[in-house]
Amino acid sequence: MSLSKLTGEFLSDEQISSLNAAAKRARAAALTMVSAAKSGHPGGAFSSMEMFLSVYGIANLTPENCSDLNRDYVVISHGHTSAGVYAALSEWGFVDREEAMAHFRNCGSAFQGHVTREVPGIDWGTGNLGQGLSAGAGFALAQRANNYNGRVYVLMGDGGQTKGQLAEARRIAVKENLTGLVALVDWNDIQISGNRNKVMPCDLKALWAADGWEVIEVDGHSFKDLYNALKNAGSHGKPSVLLCHTVIGKDGLKMEGIPDYHGKPVTPEMYDEIMKHLGEDPATLTKALERRKQGPSYKGRKIDYPAAPVIETGTPFNYEGAKVSDNRGAFGKALADVGKLNYKKDGKTPILVFDCDLKPSVMTGGFMNEAPDNFIQCGIQEHCVATMSGTASIAGVVSLWADFGVFGIDEVFNQQRLNDINHAGNKTVLTHVGLDVGEDGKTHQCIDYVGLLHNTFGWKLVVPVDPNQTDRATRWMLATPGDICLAVGRSKIDGLKEFAGDYKFEYGKAVKLREGKDGSIFALGYTAQIALKAADTLASEKNLNVAVWAVSCPLSPDMDAIKEAAKTGVILTVEDHHVNTGMGAIMVIEAARAGIALPKFKNLGVNHYGASGTSDQVRKEMGIDADSIVKEFLQVK
Amino acid sequence: MSLSKLTGEFLSDEQISSLNAAAKRARAAALTMVSAAKSGHPGGAFSSMEMFLSVYGIANLTPENCSDLNRDYVVISHGHTSAGVYAALSEWGFVDREEAMAHFRNCGSAFQGHVTREVPGIDWGTGNLGQGLSAGAGFALAQRANNYNGRVYVLMGDGGQTKGQLAEARRIAVKENLTGLVALVDWNDIQISGNRNKVMPCDLKALWAADGWEVIEVDGHSFKDLYNALKNAGSHGKPSVLLCHTVIGKDGLKMEGIPDYHGKPVTPEMYDEIMKHLGEDPATLTKALERRKQGPSYKGRKIDYPAAPVIETGTPFNYEGAKVSDNRGAFGKALADVGKLNYKKDGKTPILVFDCDLKPSVMTGGFMNEAPDNFIQCGIQEHCVATMSGTASIAGVVSLWADFGVFGIDEVFNQQRLNDINHAGNKTVLTHVGLDVGEDGKTHQCIDYVGLLHNTFGWKLVVPVDPNQTDRATRWMLATPGDICLAVGRSKIDGLKEFAGDYKFEYGKAVKLREGKDGSIFALGYTAQIALKAADTLASEKNLNVAVWAVSCPLSPDMDAIKEAAKTGVILTVEDHHVNTGMGAIMVIEAARAGIALPKFKNLGVNHYGASGTSDQVRKEMGIDADSIVKEFLQVK
Repeated sequence: MSLSKLTGEFLSDEQISSLNAAAKRARAAALTMVSAAKSGHPGGAFSSMEMFLSVYGIANLTPENCSDLNRDYVVISHGHTSAGVYAALSEWGFVDREEAMAHFRNCGSAFQGHVTREVPGIDWGTGNLGQGLSAGAGFALAQRANNYNGRVYVLMGDGGQTKGQLAEARRIAVKENLTGLVALVDWNDIQISGNRNKVMPCDLKALWAADGWEVIEVDGHSFKDLYNALKNAGSHGKPSVLLCHTVIGKDGLKMEGIPDYHGKPVTPEMYDEIMKHLGEDPATLTKALERRKQGPSYKGRKIDYPAAPVIETGTPFNYEGAKVSDNRGAFGKALADVGKLNYKKDGKTPILVFDCDLKPSVMTGGFMNEAPDNFIQCGIQEHCVATMSGTASIAGVVSLWADFGVFGIDEVFNQQRLNDINHAGNKTVLTHVGLDVGEDGKTHQCIDYVGLLHNTFGWKLVVPVDPNQTDRATRWMLATPGDICLAVGRSKIDGLKEFAGDYKFEYGKAVKLREGKDGSIFALGYTAQIALKAADTLASEKNLNVAVWAVSCPLSPDMDAIKEAAKTGVILTVEDHHVNTGMGAIMVIEAARAGIALPKFKNLGVNHYGASGTSDQVRKEMGIDADSIVKEFLQVK
Repeated sequence: MSLSKLTGEFLSDEQISSLNAAAKRARAAALTMVSAAKSGHPGGAFSSMEMFLSVYGIANLTPENCSDLNRDYVVISHGHTSAGVYAALSEWGFVDREEAMAHFRNCGSAFQGHVTREVPGIDWGTGNLGQGLSAGAGFALAQRANNYNGRVYVLMGDGGQTKGQLAEARRIAVKENLTGLVALVDWNDIQISGNRNKVMPCDLKALWAADGWEVIEVDGHSFKDLYNALKNAGSHGKPSVLLCHTVIGKDGLKMEGIPDYHGKPVTPEMYDEIMKHLGEDPATLTKALERRKQGPSYKGRKIDYPAAPVIETGTPFNYEGAKVSDNRGAFGKALADVGKLNYKKDGKTPILVFDCDLKPSVMTGGFMNEAPDNFIQCGIQEHCVATMSGTASIAGVVSLWADFGVFGIDEVFNQQRLNDINHAGNKTVLTHVGLDVGEDGKTHQCIDYVGLLHNTFGWKLVVPVDPNQTDRATRWMLATPGDICLAVGRSKIDGLKEFAGDYKFEYGKAVKLREGKDGSIFALGYTAQIALKAADTLASEKNLNVAVWAVSCPLSPDMDAIKEAAKTGVILTVEDHHVNTGMGAIMVIEAARAGIALPKFKNLGVNHYGASGTSDQVRKEMGIDADSIVKEFLQVK
């Protein structure tokens, strides 16, 4: 490795010469990777090579500091150019060139088809296009919150420039004045279906400028131009984009300018010719294939959830009495309390809260008042926010986003999935879930949040029963690593003594609100309060003692509770969630896996799109009111 | 109703006077609705009122033709302004004013919180912002495919102008030269969190212009200006947007200019004052509330799935032998065949196919060659396409969109949910599902498509076992109403005789590929071919005869098959899908509901994010190869 970090006012001839030599080596390595794996994307790897080498050369990001928090960040949005990225990283000493050439896209290797965080120097696993700038904005916001005056570089292809989420990120970057955010577009004008302007015309210069960015056009194959542009980026008081004119397959002889090599290896003859042209030995491939047979030895660095934040979680509030608060309100109050306790306090992890123009409904106004600099108004741009709060969460802040259920998960499921894949620590608060959304009607009823998150592996989900539990779960969530979703409704409900005082929230534990031997009702979140009313009626009118279990963690059923309930002869489940995919369905699956035979059983839930009316009306129409629960229990029994 | 359709070169003074009177009546009606329901959005209803009245006046859309296919379409993207829309519709004779005033947001009424198709004159149920222009583009493409030279009007708020999906739709409209598409933006500069340019700065004029639209600024409260602009829209050979300068709460006295009234009713005192100001009787509310007590009498028109298309589905191909084709290839071949048979044939329903720059991978190139004018290249803009192909499907075409699984459902779950709510007929083909995605790795493994669609009520899902079944399911899908998803893998697999020849695809039926009395394996899609190999091993090495059931319709388990299998003492399920949410989980839930006791049971599936490697490698690492199935079967047995 003969390269040394790029500093100084401009590059010397010697530096440029070293970089050009590195680019030849790196192209040869990338080509070998794709040929060894017999799959991959050589075209973009070649066209972005000078961009990769320049950015990793100038960034305050090294093999030594790449797992630290306060440093520069690099996001490769066009993650399919992975072979080029790994090759460039090997030139800068992050990874071993021979291992990468041998085990690119080999099962168990760190060198996956799309870049992942397991590879040092990769800050975000990508591949689904259009999300990189959002990721970069999140890193930049985290840097700012930690008073680190650094840079975030986001490299993108040009095909993905049409994705709507990109425009959202451009606007947020300008509004938040993220002048350390530097975007680079590999403008080779070729995408899978051919010329970019025929596939989908899009005036790159006009769009970036319209959103308020400083637009700089450079020769994307000139280290000199790239360096000058990168040095000066941000100096106009705006975020900057470098539109880098490049050639797909650059320096790859017959690959040059050919769309086909976007995503396929070259022929063996072409391989040999290109390697010779690059001054490399064509036998490199044979050696790589020989090593490939032994299986990968490098699985990459271990990526875990971000460390637990250092924050004070304060003293829980107690809510007593009938309809004392809505859960969203209790969340907002606890958030404001914790926000105040930790705001600009030395040694405390900053808490950032994101809003998509719904503050009065999602109750984050209290936090905004207590911690104004840490409240980020993002407008109606949920896709960007879902990604941005995810990356911020792995860069030294607690990041929390509150939104209506349908916007916080239905609209951005893929972004939240990628947060899961990336082991982020995104705290997402869904208000207005289930049928408790007021009169907004079916398009706003988020009846699938349990079912959606059940498709991930890492997300935790808490659906509190009352304002007391909401308060305690909010404080727990803010202090706990990992992606966590808190789902709360809109209506005022009772404060229960079971969750007040010294009650401590424990993830995965169901709480028995009522003893009973004649059957058991499991109810999700606030519907446990409806189930209690049904149990009252069953006791007073039918002399039946029915146990009521409140479930707050539907993704992690409490198996002890299910075992106990099974002995009562009847299990009825209640939730204002899609009946196929919610708490009840998950209980059935886990019981079957655990070999627990369920007794007489029925699950109540949402079995058609709901009406527009008061929450009471809508639940009644759906058969999730106390009277319906009584009727159903008696039928099952 | 004193209004008559707006025609002629310009509006007469008399027409303007009638319209102004109508606007006063309609504002009074909208205000009454919100006050009667004690919820709703009066601010935007008032600021958009002249836009609503003008568009419904000029459009070739009447109470008589509003359920026909070939006519103008109107999309209200800011669906929360519903009270204003219903009031305007009552002025144009679509709905009854008194009923709307009495039963706005009343459970069971057609007049829901966000506009729905049940109300005549509403062409798409909305409320989730940013999707309206995509919806409009779909209607415009359907009009063009049916040689109907009409208009599509899309009305939007200004807060939602920042949503990325909107930019995608702008670009597609320009590329496809949809000059009949007319957008109107209610530019009142107020959103929930305050002034639009403080919440999230966004240069409306520059953005629409940068994407190639004709930008026209008008006074959004002047019928004269609106009419002139609407008349001339499209005359510059581009799609046109009217940026309508308005005042939130216009003509509502103290409501004017106040963000608070975005989403809350006025006080009783304000109500009375505004009604008097509008020349209406404040007792209107009392009457409406009296009528409200009786419950709604008008549920709206019945919205069903689009009628079955009139197309030839041709003669199925037969695939014989080992690794004869990939399912995606069989889909592409059948699609091209049906495309050719029906292309520009009199009396046949046009078939539109949408691509997001993945044609070579999703195999729609054959169709493009056979039916070039009906192939719509949309670039990397999936959100727009998901909505657009949905609306096109209810406007007289068969619309089909093929994409990688993670883009066709994970990225656009909310759009597909809204297609379901709207009873669309979107055909979505997901290629690269499960672990069969080649070396692309975890970000591209769509392991949740069953689980995601299980959260809807109307979507059908077919996961074919082999190229023969793929061919037949493709032809079936194209001729069948409703939202249907076909999910196919990437690798070449065997053609099975069971699905060749006269086999007819039947939705919901599992196919027994192998008899057996010592246990049963249910396997999803192509994994049935792996299960067959496992059954071979169990027979030859352990002398066990294990039944193998191929499941293609995981959302509709075949209960007869489950009952039969339960008698064999063991059920093992196999799928390359998330183990919590796929076919196996659904079988368990439905068995519990049907009271079928499962025997010894285990479900195999994806229990962590997969590796990057060949599909064989990745499945083996996940324990979904034939050897693992044998091992697991023996353990359960």
